[in-house]
This record gives sequence, C-alpha cells and structure tokens, in this order.
Amino acid sequence: MVSALEISKLLNGELIGNKDTVIRSVSKIDQGHPESLTFLANPKYTNFIYETKASVVLVGKGFKSSVPNHITLIKVDDPYASFCLILDKFFNNKSALAGIEQPSFIAPDATLGKEVYIGAFAYVGSQVQVGDGTLIYPQVYIGSNVKIGKNSIIYPGVKVYNQCIIGDNCIVHAGTVIGSDGFGFAPQKDGSYAKIPQIGNVIIEDDVEIGSNCSIDRATMGSTIIRKGVKLDNLIQVAHNAEVGKNTVIASQTGVSGSTKIGENCVIGGQVGFVGHISIAKGSQIGAQSGIPNSIDTPGQKWIGSPVQEYKNYLRSSIVVKRLPDMDKKLDELEKEVEELKKKLKGE
Amino acid sequence: MVSALEISKLLNGELIGNKDTVIRSVSKIDQGHPESLTFLANPKYTNFIYETKASVVLVGKGFKSSVPNHITLIKVDDPYASFCLILDKFFNNKSALAGIEQPSFIAPDATLGKEVYIGAFAYVGSQVQVGDGTLIYPQVYIGSNVKIGKNSIIYPGVKVYNQCIIGDNCIVHAGTVIGSDGFGFAPQKDGSYAKIPQIGNVIIEDDVEIGSNCSIDRATMGSTIIRKGVKLDNLIQVAHNAEVGKNTVIASQTGVSGSTKIGENCVIGGQVGFVGHISIAKGSQIGAQSGIPNSIDTPGQKWIGSPVQEYKNYLRSSIVVKRLPDMDKKLDELEKEVEELKKKLKGE
Amino acid sequence: MVSALEISKLLNGELIGNKDTVIRSVSKIDQGHPESLTFLANPKYTNFIYETKASVVLVGKGFKSSVPNHITLIKVDDPYASFCLILDKFFNNKSALAGIEQPSFIAPDATLGKEVYIGAFAYVGSQVQVGDGTLIYPQVYIGSNVKIGKNSIIYPGVKVYNQCIIGDNCIVHAGTVIGSDGFGFAPQKDGSYAKIPQIGNVIIEDDVEIGSNCSIDRATMGSTIIRKGVKLDNLIQVAHNAEVGKNTVIASQTGVSGSTKIGENCVIGGQVGFVGHISIAKGSQIGAQSGIPNSIDTPGQKWIGSPVQEYKNYLRSSIVVKRLPDMDKKLDELEKEVEELKKKLKGE
Repeated sequence: MVSALEISKLLNGELIGNKDTVIRSVSKIDQGHPESLTFLANPKYTNFIYETKASVVLVGKGFKSSVPNHITLIKVDDPYASFCLILDKFFNNKSALAGIEQPSFIAPDATLGKEVYIGAFAYVGSQVQVGDGTLIYPQVYIGSNVKIGKNSIIYPGVKVYNQCIIGDNCIVHAGTVIGSDGFGFAPQKDGSYAKIPQIGNVIIEDDVEIGSNCSIDRATMGSTIIRKGVKLDNLIQVAHNAEVGKNTVIASQTGVSGSTKIGENCVIGGQVGFVGHISIAKGSQIGAQSGIPNSIDTPGQKWIGSPVQEYKNYLRSSIVVKRLPDMDKKLDELEKEVEELKKKLKGE
Repeated sequence: MVSALEISKLLNGELIGNKDTVIRSVSKIDQGHPESLTFLANPKYTNFIYETKASVVLVGKGFKSSVPNHITLIKVDDPYASFCLILDKFFNNKSALAGIEQPSFIAPDATLGKEVYIGAFAYVGSQVQVGDGTLIYPQVYIGSNVKIGKNSIIYPGVKVYNQCIIGDNCIVHAGTVIGSDGFGFAPQKDGSYAKIPQIGNVIIEDDVEIGSNCSIDRATMGSTIIRKGVKLDNLIQVAHNAEVGKNTVIASQTGVSGSTKIGENCVIGGQVGFVGHISIAKGSQIGAQSGIPNSIDTPGQKWIGSPVQEYKNYLRSSIVVKRLPDMDKKLDELEKEVEELKKKLKGE
Repeated sequence: MVSALEISKLLNGELIGNKDTVIRSVSKIDQGHPESLTFLANPKYTNFIYETKASVVLVGKGFKSSVPNHITLIKVDDPYASFCLILDKFFNNKSALAGIEQPSFIAPDATLGKEVYIGAFAYVGSQVQVGDGTLIYPQVYIGSNVKIGKNSIIYPGVKVYNQCIIGDNCIVHAGTVIGSDGFGFAPQKDGSYAKIPQIGNVIIEDDVEIGSNCSIDRATMGSTIIRKGVKLDNLIQVAHNAEVGKNTVIASQTGVSGSTKIGENCVIGGQVGFVGHISIAKGSQIGAQSGIPNSIDTPGQKWIGSPVQEYKNYLRSSIVVKRLPDMDKKLDELEKEVEELKKKLKGE
C-alpha cells in the first residue's frame, strides 16, 4: 500500500488530483481497477484514460487534457519507465528466499557467499563457488568447478555442467541447460561417428538473462561466450564455440550454430537459424524465421528471409512472389502474341 | 485378460465368431499377434485383415467380407474410438500412484486434496493448493500460491512458477516450464536493457494437455491464458500475455509471440511462428512452418507459407516458383524475339 | 602431464624435435599456449604454426616445412583423430563418478549393475534395470520397467518414462525427455478432443548420443525407435512411432512428425521439419530449415528448401527469386513493346 504522494515524490513527478489516493496494486490502463496504478505511454491508448477505473495514472509531461474526478495524475518524463520502477519497488511478488533448504546436496569443498539461497533438492558440486546474494532454486544442478557471481538467480531445474562460469546479476530460467557437450563427431569409414571430446566450457558474463529450456553447449576447446547484458528468450540453441555479443537480444526458438560470432547490440527475431562459422556485424536487426547462410559484414542493417536478404529487397521480392501466377499467365500470353506477330510479319 | 464377449457387450457391438476368444494385449492390424485385439478403420488397411494374426478385430457396421476362421469380428459404429475405449479400460499401463514419497518438500501451509500423489524430490511451495486425485510426479517444482485442480497429472521435472493456476483434468508433460518471466526489456540510452518486471501469471483452464519441454511465460501484468481443452505438443513457446483459444491444437516447436490471441478450434502445424499483438480467427487451419505477420480475420480458412497466404494461392505460387528458372529463360527468349520483330519492322 | 615421446609412441608417430617436451594441456593452434598440445589438419591454418605458442603440434605425414625451435612436431596419418585420442586419454575432465549418493530414490525391485553411479535426487522406479558402468546423474527420473544398458551416461534432469529402453554406450544430455505421450487426439462432435492412449514405448539402440532438452515421444502402440549410432543435437522433437535410421545425424531444433521413417546414414540440418507418415531414403542430405512434405525415395541425394527441392534446382530457383523484381519489370516492358509492335503492324 502506497499513496499517490509517495509515488510522486519518488518519481520526482508533478501530482494533479488527490495526493492521499491509496494504491494497492497495478493494472493496464484498459483493464484498470480501483486502487490501482497504471500509466499512459502509447498515444493510441489515450482514450482509455477517460474510461479506466484505475486511481492513479502516470502520464508524460506534455499531457494536457482534463480527466475524470476519480483519477489522480502524476506527470513524469517517461511514464513506462517510471511505472516499472514502482512495480519493482512495491509490487514485485518475489518472496524473500534465504538459507539452505533440506534436503540439498552441497559438496564439502564448495564455497557459498553471504545471503545465498539453496533450494531443496539442489545439487552443488565439488569446488563450486557461489557469490553473495545469489539464489539457487530447488532441483538446480551445479557441476564441479562452476563459478557463479553475485546476486544472480538460477531458477528451478537449471542444469550447469562442470567448469562453466556465470557472472553477476544474471538470471537463468527453469529448464535451461548450460554446458552440455557440443555436437561434434568425426565420421568413420564404416559410416559410424566417433565422438570428439568437448573439453571447453561456457562463459556467461554479467547482467545476462536467459529464458527457459534453452541449450547452451560448451566449447570443444576454449569457451562458448554470452557477453555482458545479453538477453535470450526461451528454447534457444547456442552451439559450441559460438559467441553472442554485448547487449544483443534474441527471441525464442532461434538457433546459433557452432563457432558463429554475433556482434554487439543486435536484435534477432524468433525461429532464426544461423549456420556455423560466420560473423554477424554489430547492430544487425534480423527478422523472425530468417536463415543466415553467410556472414553479415555491414553493421546496423535490417535483414529478413531464408536465405536472408536486405529488408528492402525482401519487401520488393515478396510482393512479386504473390504476383507470380499472374506473371506466369502474362508470360504465356505474351509468347502467343509474339508468335502471332511473327506469323503476320512472315505473311506479308 | 478379457473375453471377446465382454468387449462386445461393453461396446454394444455385434459379435461374429468365437465369443470365448481371450484377449491379453492390443496390436496394430499390420503387426497383429495372437490373443491381441486390433481394429480396422482406414479402408486402405482392409487387406491386412486376411493376414493379421490378431484374434479379435473391431470393424465398422458396414463390414461385409468373410475373414479367416481364427478371427472374431466385433461390428461397432466407430472402430477406432471403440478400440481407444478398450485400450484405456484394460491395457493402460499406468501404475496406481498414491501417497507422499520421501524425501519430498511440502510447505506447511500447502493444502493437498484427497488421493493426491507427491513423488520423491517434488517441491510444493507455500500456500499451494492441489485438488483431489492429482498426481505430482518426482522432481516437480510448484512455486508459492500456485493452484492445481482435480485429477490433473504433472509429470516429472515440470516447473510451475509462483501464482500460476492449472485447472482440472490437465496433463503437463516432463520438462515443461509454466510461468517463467516474459521477455520484456526496455532499451536504455547506453545500449543496455532494463528488465521490465513480470508480475502477471499463467492460467491453464480445464482439460488441457501440454507436451514436454514447452515454455509458457507469465504475463507482464494480467495473465497468459491457455483455454479449456487446448492441446499443445512438445517444445512450444507461448509468450507473455498470449492466449490460446478453447479446443485449439498446436503441433510441436511452434512459437506464439507476446499478446497474440489465437481463436477457438484452430488447428496449427509444427514450427509455425506468430508475431506479437495479432489475433487469429477461430477455426483457422495453419500449415507447418508458416510465419504469421498479421492478424487473420476470416474464420475457418486454411493458410500456409512464410509470410502466410491462403492455401489455394500458396499452391498456385509454389508451382510457379518451381518453374521460375524456365520462366526466366522464356522471358529472355521473348525479349530477343521482340527485338528481332522490331528490327524487321524498321527494316521494311 | 605427458611427454612428447609418450604421445608419439602412443600414436605410432614420427617425432621431430625435443622428445622430452612436457604437455600439460591442449589448445587450438591459433590460441596455443606453452606446454600445450595442438594439431594442424586444415591447410588454411598452416600459417599459425609459425606463430603458435603451443609446444607440440600433430601434423600430417606430408608436412615438410621447418618450424620454430620451440615446437616439437609429431607426424601422424590423421592429426585431428590423433588429437582427439590424446584428448580423451589424458585431458578429459570427467571426474570419476561412483557409488550411490544420498538422498536418492531406488525402488527395492530395481536391478543395478556393477560400478553404477546414481546421483543425489535421482529416481529409479520399480523393475528398472541399469547395466554395468552406467552413470545416472542427479535429478534424473527413470520410470518403472525401464532398461538401460552398459556404460551409458544419463546427464542431470533427464526424464525417462516407464517401459522405455536405452542401449549400451549411449549418452543423453540434460533436460531431455524420453517417452512422453505421443500427440494423439480424436476430434469429438462438440469440437473437443479425446485423448488416444499412448501405450507404446521408445527404444534407443546402442551408441546413440542425444543432446539437451530434446523430446522423444513414446509410440501410440509399438515403439518409437532411434537406431544404433544415431546422433541427435539439442531441442529436437521426435514424434510417436517415428524411426531414425542407423548412423543418421540430426542438427538442433529439427522436428520429425509421427510415424515418419528416416533412413540410415542421413545428414540432416537444423530447424528442419518432416511431416508425418513419410519415408526418407538412406544417405539423404537435407539442408537447414527445410520442410519435407513428401517421402524422398532416391537415396544419397542433397535436398533443401521449404517445400524441399533437389539442391541443384534450389540453387537455380533462389538465384532467380532474387531477380524477380527485375523480371517483373522486364515483363511489363516487353508487354508494352509488343503492344507497340501490334499497333505498328495494324497501322500499316
């Protein structure tokens, strides 16, 4: 429970209306309910401010219209960012997890920092290091020699193979596997395959969030690397020796093949596939379901399609593709007309 | 063990042959073995009835041919549905699970119904409610405040984050994650991303089956909703605030992006991708590997392709695409001929 | 720690340089560090041999150049295979796992072979048989009546449903689910679906490796079969009653639909989709992101695209697709020119 005045002060905002209005929850503006806080960021939602049952609405500094009496406005620079801040401060339903639940398995030579949580049925292997404030949820597996930094959250059922490294302030969602063997096999003369030992590891730098049920394979030798600030959605594949650049975001079900390097600040859609051993220039934006057979060298461009093309070309091509049956028909007609013309010319 | 007569009575069928024939297992008609029950539903399998070693065959009411002496026929309205009924009644190899295995973790304030099974290493959090007859297999994680209805089956290793709701008669297969954070980040000026708190939940209504290793994200605010009777295959992604309509079925590896609403009674193939914030009309049928960039407004149509097109157009286009090299050649030839004609005309 | 001489003897190689050079680790030639072993297999890496800091380099028998003094060469038939052999023998960082960790759950009627490892929080159900030397990592679930052969490795969190069979020398990576129900439902008149009981199992033959977070469904009746020597990457879907032929390799995120049979020695890229009830000829090579709507009958061919085409046709078509906007323009121009010609002819 928090008052409109407290929120306004915290956000350094300008309050218009009843400063004593009490807030007990948050809502979307089109689903607002009494005693809730909401926000107006997208102009196309402006009309909802006259209908919403929310009690306090965060709006931009430029908002001028008058609103129903039951609503208290707070004007701020960035309504959405401000809303997120309040959300995180007052309405984050994370329970305070602490201590070591039983039964859990912690190797005698593992090192745990201060205020660490280890959930029941979690397994912490030999020589593991876990930093201060990190939460290891139930049923997590941490293989031997793994290092995890400070204030990271490892959700239930995550599996981290031995030797892997996870930084500070990371979040790894349930079911994700970090450090499984790379897909490396040497074909034999009899048609079978011999396993190539996978003795590298995975390094996940600080501030990374990885969704649920992802697979990040360890390197054959060296490291598969997820750089600082990367955000991966669910069900993503990152193969051995791949690297995902700083602050790059990748949507669900995308696959990055072996040894491919994706640059910084890229934005990559869902269900995209990258072949192995290529490089993607920094700032590339790649549309959903694209297939990337070659390196992308020019930074900051938009791409889409399988095989991928520049976005502009793709738009032109895809329009023409839809007209293909018409083109085909036109071509046949033209052929006949030319034939006619030839006959006429001969006839003369 | 059950006799042909018992089966016939149960199915209200018409028995032709030896009513005392004993059945100890079930089989496919092309793999039939003695003392097994099989069925003939698809006419293209009719020939197998003269070769099968099965002892009892369920056939349609209209089946007229004579069959080898060792076979007992039972005529029923729907041979396949009848077969499934017998399968479920007599040959379902589920063991009777009951009680609370040790060690398991059950919060003191969790509420368990009657005849609930809790497997070893399962974690049942604070304030959790589990309905009568529900099975929680080993290594399942149920976060705080989760509600699960009656007679549901939660297979090994499923992870359900806090606040989520699962209905009655649901089945969730191993490795599936329900309620992981939605993929929501606000870009910052320095190129990094700030996490947007994900404080909603997931609601799964009654009679839903979800395959293995799926990821169903919680809503940012409000709920991600899987409606009554939905069937999801394996490795499916459902993003934050999405909704899947009543009795819709979705095949493996499909992804539904944030806030997209799929209507009732849709049939969706595998590896399909839906962008965010669109609506799909009820009764839509969408082919495998399709990409859906926009809302589909007309109900009950067939669609396929990436970007998706109406099925009829797609068929026409895809035929033409294969002829593209020929079209290209023809176009070049026509160009030359027209050039010739122009020369001739000028020359006159 | 091992000497150059020992390595050379083991490989039956020819040593050139200091036989007493000591090796403590392995490296890639372009990242070589002192006291490490590396190899030169790909000619395009030849230049690195003059710069590498590695101490011992495995090269082919035909290697003739002189190298810096600090490098000891060992000439062998196949440098990469030899390297893998040494890797596996001396530098494989697998810890020696043995015994039964506590707490674990082992049904009284389960049978464990010699030198089996059962990790903490693993669940071994009723009537399970585990062969000699097999490792069951923590948090694995083995349902009742499952059989696992000798010297197999089941990584953390793998779930094997009841009745399934896994052979000798298999590796199954973390999070993979074997034997979840096939996706089988019978449509009912009211638009809902009735579950078809899935009473078959999964059979995994010897020498199979399966990546992390895969889903291999049990058969409706009979068996879903993964033949000897198959290698599956991560996040792969294999549906009920499918079969993957001997020594076939499949890359990440590919889906095989129900009852489809893939032949022996196929090589299949990532994100490929196969519809149900088709057969793929042995030795087929299928490119990434392909969609396979029909059986492939000719063995040993290369295929790609969605819908799939022969590789040669695809190359031709995809070149033309890029030129489509130009073709379209050309077609319009030709049409005008023919119109002009017709007018001229009429005018005469």
